Amino acid sequence: MKVTTSFLELREARESLKATVGLVPTMGFLHEGHLSLVRAARQECSSVVVTIFVNPAQFGPAEDLSRYPRDLERDLSLLKKENVDLVWAPPTETLYPADFQTWVDLEKVSKPLEGAMRPGHFKGVATIVAKLFNAIQPQKAFFGQKDAQQAAVIRQMVKDLNYPIEVIICPIAREGDGLAMSSRNVYLQPAERQAATVLSRALFAIRQAFEDGERDAGQLKQIMQTIFNQEPLARVQYISCADPVTLQELESIENQALFSVAVFIGNTRLIDNMLVP
Amino acid sequence: MKVTTSFLELREARESLKATVGLVPTMGFLHEGHLSLVRAARQECSSVVVTIFVNPAQFGPAEDLSRYPRDLERDLSLLKKENVDLVWAPPTETLYPADFQTWVDLEKVSKPLEGAMRPGHFKGVATIVAKLFNAIQPQKAFFGQKDAQQAAVIRQMVKDLNYPIEVIICPIAREGDGLAMSSRNVYLQPAERQAATVLSRALFAIRQAFEDGERDAGQLKQIMQTIFNQEPLARVQYISCADPVTLQELESIENQALFSVAVFIGNTRLIDNMLVP
Repeated sequence: MKVTTSFLELREARESLKATVGLVPTMGFLHEGHLSLVRAARQECSSVVVTIFVNPAQFGPAEDLSRYPRDLERDLSLLKKENVDLVWAPPTETLYPADFQTWVDLEKVSKPLEGAMRPGHFKGVATIVAKLFNAIQPQKAFFGQKDAQQAAVIRQMVKDLNYPIEVIICPIAREGDGLAMSSRNVYLQPAERQAATVLSRALFAIRQAFEDGERDAGQLKQIMQTIFNQEPLARVQYISCADPVTLQELESIENQALFSVAVFIGNTRLIDNMLVP
Repeated sequence: MKVTTSFLELREARESLKATVGLVPTMGFLHEGHLSLVRAARQECSSVVVTIFVNPAQFGPAEDLSRYPRDLERDLSLLKKENVDLVWAPPTETLYPADFQTWVDLEKVSKPLEGAMRPGHFKGVATIVAKLFNAIQPQKAFFGQKDAQQAAVIRQMVKDLNYPIEVIICPIAREGDGLAMSSRNVYLQPAERQAATVLSRALFAIRQAFEDGERDAGQLKQIMQTIFNQEPLARVQYISCADPVTLQELESIENQALFSVAVFIGNTRLIDNMLVP
């Protein structure tokens, strides 16, 4: 496994990789969710590239950039075990030098939900993903369904900007009790960690209600709200039932719906989602 | 020479091109300026791709999109003579489908001069060039110095978005009397065509003044203004002496300066520029 930091080193190492090249972009502090993406890439591609970069452009000024968890050494040892070919872990100045001024922005799919709660977030995401796509030129790129709106933003960007890249979205990895894996779960105190299962419990409940025949988005969202009301440590930011491609809110489910939630558990903001059916 | 229109056809043809691939993006209605780019690409690259696409996103609502000159048949016959390998001439809907919503925008270098006179122009330019870079994945890309600010915008974008592409800027091709070649020169009536030489005459005059020792930007711009004042058909929009990389205005010339002008000759807006020294 080759580990690179500069752009030139990366490009030199990239030249010798055999196609198909699969890219797994990460912000590090890897968990089983990331590793499931790496394994999917390993299975589908001749070469696997993983990037580790905590992207400042996707954090708001009041967000957790400075305390975002990092452990490069542990990340590298995990990736080595997965037979990754190439890691790029550049310093911030390499990707955002002083005169940096070019941004990729989406007009619609980036606006509701996370985009409304975290202004500028998807501008930062789209820009860094475009940069990584350009620097690495993969044929396939792997992202997690955990960040469902990010997945929709990247799919739209790939289509709009004519990237010859197949975007593969892998299922959410969950802990035994249902909590969606996230690097931010380390912020949770023990009681909060217990309370945090309310997100997946609420989502599994609406899937059950859907299977029982409920199609009205308002009714289904109310089922979730009721479950959140029973958890004193939970403060709901949004509950959404939206079209999975456009992220526009639905009134009833005709084809497929993306249910997504953002919930504060104590001071920690968690997101989760489920595609129905 | 293979001519393609759809994205899939293009990608299929691209797969079989030998590296180094050189890209010459054009809006068609080719003149000797375009052909000089094609020849530079032919000389430096194993494969040459030319795109022909009148990009609506870089025209303002009051600009000349609908009457912009087009002649695909003539363009293709000229490119065939230059031994071009692959042409991509997609219809507008292929590059801007109904749900298109992703834009590339630069915060600084795109703002003065043409950016100030033509709001949104460089957002359209940066976006289409990013799309062509992604679709074609060239190792080298060729642009004309005629559009000097466009060259600066593209260089900055390539750096910021980590494209592994060498940008090559070719000299301005001029008619025998000095007029910079432009597809828009066909708009000029005979008397206007004569008057239009005032742009290059003014630029050559400041180069002479610089060689004679003048370094003050204000003095040099005044020399140009005086020459324009003597041409009744000319209406100056701007005269600039700027840093060639940042496009920030200079007070005096220490290293290199880009002198650029935008001038209406009758109803036709022309631009021209000169690097000094």
